[in-house]
Amino acid sequence: MKACVLFSGGKDSSLCAIILKNLGYDVELVTINFGVLDSYKYAQETAKILNLPHKVICLKDTPLLNNCKNIILKDGFPSNGIQYLHKQVLEILSDSYSVIADGVRRDDRVPKLTHGEVQSLEMRKNIEYLSPLMGFGHKTIKRLINEHFIISEKESEDLLKSDYETEIRELLKMEGKNPLDYFPKHIQSRVMGLKNPSSFNTK
Amino acid sequence: MKACVLFSGGKDSSLCAIILKNLGYDVELVTINFGVLDSYKYAQETAKILNLPHKVICLKDTPLLNNCKNIILKDGFPSNGIQYLHKQVLEILSDSYSVIADGVRRDDRVPKLTHGEVQSLEMRKNIEYLSPLMGFGHKTIKRLINEHFIISEKESEDLLKSDYETEIRELLKMEGKNPLDYFPKHIQSRVMGLKNPSSFNTK
Repeated sequence: MKACVLFSGGKDSSLCAIILKNLGYDVELVTINFGVLDSYKYAQETAKILNLPHKVICLKDTPLLNNCKNIILKDGFPSNGIQYLHKQVLEILSDSYSVIADGVRRDDRVPKLTHGEVQSLEMRKNIEYLSPLMGFGHKTIKRLINEHFIISEKESEDLLKSDYETEIRELLKMEGKNPLDYFPKHIQSRVMGLKNPSSFNTK
Repeated sequence: MKACVLFSGGKDSSLCAIILKNLGYDVELVTINFGVLDSYKYAQETAKILNLPHKVICLKDTPLLNNCKNIILKDGFPSNGIQYLHKQVLEILSDSYSVIADGVRRDDRVPKLTHGEVQSLEMRKNIEYLSPLMGFGHKTIKRLINEHFIISEKESEDLLKSDYETEIRELLKMEGKNPLDYFPKHIQSRVMGLKNPSSFNTK
């Protein structure tokens, strides 16, 4: 069974891919890009490390990133904008994939769909939406990441990855705004290697 | 890392065990028994099929099953009683294991802990509580079960398994009650074999 895994090159989406691959899914990593930066290339590198097929879907001709940026400017903080963007991306992918997964975790606040929103998406679009990390807390994920991946951790200002935030920050800069006024400084991470090749059940 | 997986011999707890084993956990299957029936033996059989260590923890000297039965008799339906029992079992296991997992699914109503209850349990007891199926819906679980397991499905009246319900039904019978007045008829299943030995990453 094919599964589209929304992939930023970060640890959560990489762990999600490992779980689904080991359950027998034919995983395709999918990175969303909005044409602001070629930041998808970081996810491409990590996909090679994970030895999984990778695809970039370009949504530059949609108003999504701009809408997201406007929500963030209005709110003064990013959560509602990111929530909006993720939900719209899932709607779009649902037209092309019948199984869609992301790396959303139990203790994440956004992006996160309510149980009702998940059921609505699945039923309206006749898809399956999977969040394999939803049953794991912060401490557990941290341990699993540490066991499976070699990661690079840097301040969000310095580490370029392929998540929504990277292009949103650039779009804010292009409008003369300081991203730090909207996104608090936080540590970002990217997967640079597998600690143990047997993370994947390749039998 | 050792993980205690609450294990009934059914498909959900078996799938939970597969996911954790493939993530590198040292899985110990644990079946709770209240001394009413030797129903733990069904889980023992399935544990052998999964080739995972199995332990029976007997809680016959606690008032838990009797309390649960009284809640069910008062309510006339089983959900609150089962919710009570599961939460009490997690509290007890938390004194012996630092990682505890169960097969609770996204679309289950009971037993299910709220996010606040999970965080309370983890912090009070300094444990990690894992529900690896929490990010998967009914349709997804059904597909995964079908891909991984040979199962036996029967009416809940006829199939003996090692879950809470089996002993609760017996306790109701011992008090002259008809379990069917409290538990609606439903299809129960037990894992009888693995379809594909490579379900487990044993490298």
